[in-house]
Parts: sequence; structure tokens; C-alpha cells
Amino acid sequence: MIKQVRMKVPPPCFTLERFVEFSETDMAGIVHFSNFFRYMEMAEAAFFRQLGCSIVSSEPDGSMTGWPRVRVHCSYSAPLRFEDRLRIALHIEALKIKAICYQFRFYRLAPEPLLVAKGGMTTLFARFSQSGHMTSAVPSREVWDKLERAKGH
Amino acid sequence: MIKQVRMKVPPPCFTLERFVEFSETDMAGIVHFSNFFRYMEMAEAAFFRQLGCSIVSSEPDGSMTGWPRVRVHCSYSAPLRFEDRLRIALHIEALKIKAICYQFRFYRLAPEPLLVAKGGMTTLFARFSQSGHMTSAVPSREVWDKLERAKGH
Amino acid sequence: MIKQVRMKVPPPCFTLERFVEFSETDMAGIVHFSNFFRYMEMAEAAFFRQLGCSIVSSEPDGSMTGWPRVRVHCSYSAPLRFEDRLRIALHIEALKIKAICYQFRFYRLAPEPLLVAKGGMTTLFARFSQSGHMTSAVPSREVWDKLERAKGH
Amino acid sequence: MIKQVRMKVPPPCFTLERFVEFSETDMAGIVHFSNFFRYMEMAEAAFFRQLGCSIVSSEPDGSMTGWPRVRVHCSYSAPLRFEDRLRIALHIEALKIKAICYQFRFYRLAPEPLLVAKGGMTTLFARFSQSGHMTSAVPSREVWDKLERAKGH
Repeated sequence: MIKQVRMKVPPPCFTLERFVEFSETDMAGIVHFSNFFRYMEMAEAAFFRQLGCSIVSSEPDGSMTGWPRVRVHCSYSAPLRFEDRLRIALHIEALKIKAICYQFRFYRLAPEPLLVAKGGMTTLFARFSQSGHMTSAVPSREVWDKLERAKGH
Repeated sequence: MIKQVRMKVPPPCFTLERFVEFSETDMAGIVHFSNFFRYMEMAEAAFFRQLGCSIVSSEPDGSMTGWPRVRVHCSYSAPLRFEDRLRIALHIEALKIKAICYQFRFYRLAPEPLLVAKGGMTTLFARFSQSGHMTSAVPSREVWDKLERAKGH
Repeated sequence: MIKQVRMKVPPPCFTLERFVEFSETDMAGIVHFSNFFRYMEMAEAAFFRQLGCSIVSSEPDGSMTGWPRVRVHCSYSAPLRFEDRLRIALHIEALKIKAICYQFRFYRLAPEPLLVAKGGMTTLFARFSQSGHMTSAVPSREVWDKLERAKGH
Repeated sequence: MIKQVRMKVPPPCFTLERFVEFSETDMAGIVHFSNFFRYMEMAEAAFFRQLGCSIVSSEPDGSMTGWPRVRVHCSYSAPLRFEDRLRIALHIEALKIKAICYQFRFYRLAPEPLLVAKGGMTTLFARFSQSGHMTSAVPSREVWDKLERAKGH
């Protein structure tokens, strides 16, 4: 039923399904637009878990590595409401040495399938020192290989 | 001190200053990127209040009018942390019959002034019926005139 | 392994398991305490869905019914972190004509099982008119029966 | 106008006023109940800033000190809506060696003054090591003296 939409984009690397929570709505009766960025991150984190990785790692020296965002965007075409069943499709548009460009498609699965939003996120690999200083870094070979296989898939 | 940045964009229609709250941070020690979209909306709501309007109105027939978002984006250039003093500058890039295109600049004012993020938001005027149905609408002449004067300013 | 804790409370009416999301953490590296109240509501909504009901209903006259909160509380005994596997156990402590008293237990399932928090919520059945006026109401016989069976279970 | 309410509690140590934001509402058209805990924390942080302190401090060894919550509660008596002017009154109920017990009163100032909620928060002073381990600690003499003076006031 959502074949037409799928033809426009390659198959996703990963999909996540969940219900819309009550606290995600606003007084207009729909999901607050800022929550779509949290949905992107939920899909990204679940995608990494499926690869046996995490979007956050603690290093032996007390520092932390993660993926701070460089640019994000979202376009909304239909409202999403409480208890709608939501499918978040994650696509890797580009995999660079220190960065990933994701594309996201948001589908409302019930009552009938519908593309409700499209988004994107460019995220950089970085190290956060104990003092809170952030510097760009290169992910491990192991993580990179897993991401590349997931992209090619 | 932030003169160079200001030269790139016309003077804002409105600015809002606030402290970063603890609940707006994440485990990386910085403001969660999704909160910049809430900051945009806080500035938009305060801008409307200054004009003597509101971004939401109740209509006599039980319906509600508001400004649902069509497209939003944000680019991040420096981290923002707990208790940083934040200035949100709101610019009206375009004022259309049924829509407004905003640009936003986010400055960290202390310890020293710094542009931390740039964003944008295209928002459509719409009516929400009692049953939750959303249709585009035209704002009142009074609201439109106030917006136009604020833009020209 | 969490048998000792379970002995103190009757078996839950419902349990929900999920991962902790990145956006739920704060700069102390732990789940922000306010999110436990969102977790309570997520469990409540999923519990109602399992009963074939919803915590929110639209009425033919354009009004809405729901369960606004009267009193809530939470006690924290251990931190919860990003990607911890969380189990939320929902107990019905008392079922009244127009109100439900819930108890909640929050367990971190991995790396090892641990009770991290206990909470409670008293919630009242109410009708929200189109104009936003709230009045207490009585749930339908069908919903009440389902709740009573779930409590007795 | 809110004299009767004030007679029941001693004068607050600190008050904070703000507008209710759009993103703080839910589909029932009122402030989501979990946000009152964020309001408590906003008042606590602003109270500390007024004392010339912060609820969070970075230590020379890379650790962080803060005030994790032990028990929190809130009772709701009237709804709070978008753009309501909110006054948060912070009271110190008890000041212990390693802990503070706060009481909060939430007033809607417009259209007419009204007590909308009462809450409380017991919070413990703690140190977070670089590895994320949390241990209780004793605040500095300077901070303690400021808190005691504010309580007595």
C-alpha cells in the first residue's frame, strides 16, 4: 500500500515501529514537531544496537565518544496523533570518514498507511573529554565496517 | 562583539534571552539538539505576544487556529551548555498569504558571545476543527498587518 | 533474582519493557527524574491498549474523555542510564468509581536486575469540553469491568 | 488576591515567573503533568543562581557535583494552559547536612490568581565520578551558609 512512496527511495537500512505516546502530543492534538527529531535518534540508536554497537561509548581514559549533530531537517505532510502506529525508516545517504548522512521516512501505519514526514540528519563522530571539550574523531574500523555493510544491504 | 555575524543578516524582528535549563541537556553535557526547535517556538510565541497576538486562537465555533510547521531545519556550530545565557534572534524571511518563513540565529552570550546554531521554520496558518481535522486558512487582516510591520521594522 | 523485591508487592497487572533513549538522559549521565512520570504514562497507555481500550476517547459531541492526574510521586534508589533495559510494572492499588490509584515499580534489567524507582499516580476520569472545560465523569461499564478483571488478575 | 493561600505557608525563599510554552501542553489542552517537575528544577536552578551558586559544579579532578532527587511529588488542583502566566514559589522545608527538602507552590497569575499545584522534592548532594559513579557528598561551607541564610529569610 505504501509501494509508491518506497519506489522513490532505496530500501531502508533499518526500521523501527512504535506507538505515539500521550506526552508527545501538544494542544493541537498532534505530535509536537520537535519529537520527530527524537524519533530519528531512537531509530539511530536501535540501528546501532542491531549492529552490536552503541551511538555512545565510554573510553578507558574517562572520555566519551558519540555522534553530535551538524545539520538536521524535517518536512511534515500529515499529522500524527496519539496511539498512531509509527514506522520510522532509516536510510544511510552517505557514509564519510568522520560523518554519516541519514535520511528518514515516517509512516503512520494505522488506520491506513501514510507518509507523514521526511527528515535528514548529518552527524559527526566526536570525542567528549572529561572537561566537556568536543573534538572530531574517527570511528573504529569495526564500527565503520558494520555501517558500510548495513548501508550496502 | 558579535558584529561580524550580525552583518550577514538583517536585524532581527525579535530577540528572546533565557538561561539553558538542566532538563534541556543530555548525557554528552550539551543541549539536546531537538531543543533548538522548542527554542524557535518559544521565540515565535513571545514575538506574537509582543505584537498583542497569540500563535493559538480559540474560535467561537469551538475550532482552534494555529501555525503547524511545514519544514524546519537547524545547523549546529558550537555546543550550548547548562546555564549558558542564550539569545534567540527571530527573522521573518518571507511573509506569504497563508505562511511565514522564519530564520533563527542562536547566540551564547556568556562566557563570551558566539553563534552556536542557525535554523529555519516554515509555518502555515491552519484551522483545527473540533474533530481534529486540519485545513489551511488565512490569518486576520489585523494579525497580517502586525506581522508586516514587524517584518519591515 | 528480583524475587525479594517482588515479595513486597502483589504481581503487577501489566509490565512494559523498553530501552532508555538518549534524549531521556541529562548532563549527569542519568535519566532525568521527570521522565519516570512519562514512563508511568507509557505503561498506563499500553495497559489500556492491552484491554482493548484507550486512556483517551473522542465523544460524538466533540468532547474528549481522559484521565487527568490528581497526585503523583516517585522515589529513586539507583540511577538509570542510556540503553539500560527498563521494566515498568503497573499495579492497581485501588479502583474507585471515578478514579484509579496506580503503583509502579521500575526495574533495570541489564546488566543485572535492580529496583531503581517506585512511584504512584492517582488519576481521575474526566470530560474535556470543546471549550477546554474539565469535569469529572464516570467511565463506561465496559471499561470499568475490564479494569476490575485486570486488577483481580 | 492570593492572600488566603499564602497564609497557609511561610513566605517563599524564591519565586520565578514565566509563561507556559506551547511544547509543554498535551492533547488535553493543558500542561502535561510531568512538566511541573521541570518547573521545580527551573526554580531551584534560578534560586541557586540568585545565591551566586549553581546546582551543578565541575571539580578539578574531572568529577561533577550536583543534587540528584530522592523523592518527588506533586498534587494538581486546576489546569494550567498555554500562555498562562505561572508563578513558582520555592520553599526550603528542611536543610540537612547532605540534603534539601523543598516545597513548591504553583500559581496561575492570569487571567486571575489561582493555586494550580503543590509539590515537593527531596534532593541529595552527590558527586558523579568520571566513570559515572554517584556517591553522596557534603556541600561546601559557603554554599551551606548561603542556603541557610536564604531559608531563614
